[in-house]
Amino acid sequence: MSIIVLGTVALDSVKTPYGKRVHMLGGSAVHFAMSARLFAPVNLVAIIGEDFPKKYIDFLHQKGLILTSLIKERGNTFKWEGEYEGDLNTALTLNTELGVLSIFHPQISPQQRKIKYIFLANLDPDIQRHLLQKMSSPKLVGLDSMNYWINHKRRALLRLLKEVDIYVANDQEARSLSGENNLLKAAKYLYNCGPKMVLIKKGEHGVLFFAPKFIFSLPAYPTDKVVDPTGAGDTFAGGFMGYLAKVNKINPITIKKAIAYGTVVASFNVEGFGIERTANLTLKDLRNRMKRFKKCILF
Amino acid sequence: MSIIVLGTVALDSVKTPYGKRVHMLGGSAVHFAMSARLFAPVNLVAIIGEDFPKKYIDFLHQKGLILTSLIKERGNTFKWEGEYEGDLNTALTLNTELGVLSIFHPQISPQQRKIKYIFLANLDPDIQRHLLQKMSSPKLVGLDSMNYWINHKRRALLRLLKEVDIYVANDQEARSLSGENNLLKAAKYLYNCGPKMVLIKKGEHGVLFFAPKFIFSLPAYPTDKVVDPTGAGDTFAGGFMGYLAKVNKINPITIKKAIAYGTVVASFNVEGFGIERTANLTLKDLRNRMKRFKKCILF
Repeated sequence: MSIIVLGTVALDSVKTPYGKRVHMLGGSAVHFAMSARLFAPVNLVAIIGEDFPKKYIDFLHQKGLILTSLIKERGNTFKWEGEYEGDLNTALTLNTELGVLSIFHPQISPQQRKIKYIFLANLDPDIQRHLLQKMSSPKLVGLDSMNYWINHKRRALLRLLKEVDIYVANDQEARSLSGENNLLKAAKYLYNCGPKMVLIKKGEHGVLFFAPKFIFSLPAYPTDKVVDPTGAGDTFAGGFMGYLAKVNKINPITIKKAIAYGTVVASFNVEGFGIERTANLTLKDLRNRMKRFKKCILF
Repeated sequence: MSIIVLGTVALDSVKTPYGKRVHMLGGSAVHFAMSARLFAPVNLVAIIGEDFPKKYIDFLHQKGLILTSLIKERGNTFKWEGEYEGDLNTALTLNTELGVLSIFHPQISPQQRKIKYIFLANLDPDIQRHLLQKMSSPKLVGLDSMNYWINHKRRALLRLLKEVDIYVANDQEARSLSGENNLLKAAKYLYNCGPKMVLIKKGEHGVLFFAPKFIFSLPAYPTDKVVDPTGAGDTFAGGFMGYLAKVNKINPITIKKAIAYGTVVASFNVEGFGIERTANLTLKDLRNRMKRFKKCILF
């Protein structure tokens, strides 16, 4: 089954203890797509500005992404500049330039409205809802957000939570939105806000999944090669949604496998800057690492 | 097989968001023993003062612990006073009274010297080494420590690391001793200090095990009932060492199972103050929770 992802396409400038990159291809929709494409056709719904390099468009095409809803407008592409220090767990945002993102009105084709697997990556919750309302037959709707929207558009986010199947949040966001320190309590609180399932991403500590019928917890793939964690959460979500779209079945067994695939593909993401490592991944690479991952966690 | 544990027997005063307790029975050796006793006979090597309540001695007897090397000296029992706030992950030490701990010279019987499973719980590394040198035929020697010794007796600790099989550290201690933020890098660094295996406890995030032949990672048992985490690490170590002593085989399969048992028994520990919850545990309770744990993590 196809997937549609709404999110950002960005030019990211990142500095980590391993080096720096300027204006590399990034953004939530791109990281998500780079991972989800390994499992299913991915439709990108996003906006870019006039300064967006043609080579990046060519690259996205070449990766098989469907770009009919990637619109270009007058102005500059969304830019993010950040730095990681020490344990590389927390990004310090140095600068954000919204550019054309501030005038973004997602548009999709009649064909795309019928897509069943929908991921609303981090963006203004009003824009996320706007797209969701256009979709005619959703089977699985995933939602990501970030602290900015939790703090500045809390009501819009809470309204949107009632309309999605799975809310994907990082630990910090889950704690912030719920007011609970214990992550299982936070997950239960968020579940009571409306979504059928809650998936809390804990970075180097893995993930916690909550649904009333089952709880699932998985550590991250143990790696000592963390070069740049930017986009790891979106990469995880891409693997998770991608796997479910591919098997087109949503039950505890497929959800667990989807979480494991998300975890494995995210472990590649952190090994390089931006999408350097995920851009050339194959399903075979994932399956090989999945074998090693299983050895590290199953008993 | 029998186990011998060297550590503290303490009177703990603890305050958490769920209440407080004054002078309850605690200490690294007690928490370890309360867990290990479920699998194997446990010999306690520790010191208490004249103020140590008789009811606690009776209690330890009643739990089947072998107390021939629990010595009483003139002076006060070791006391620790601490408080947990917010996420209950970090203890704030309010007061420490060493008491008789400052004159502790562990003594064991000729019979006890032959015990093969040895755990050196948190204590001065010189005292830990003193006991270890008395042991005639160790099969598995586990070592725990804490930041105080890392900072104040680093050389003694590093020397001791060369003489043990497994070093059990929490994430903070592992980072502090190794100077590495990434926990896998930290584990590799610590492995290169001498022990055959390294086990890093990450509290609510589970554990990471490192040996050159295999890496194993496990999340914590998902619980939203964290009342008092004091002693969770020692309880984990008790389940880990206890299981290995019971099966008396050390290989990747038994190590993984031992880590899982340690994780499960530690999840009980945090649900009550001190040893309130582990004191009445049975192996049946552990096995039931192990079944639920497996559902939460296996795929």
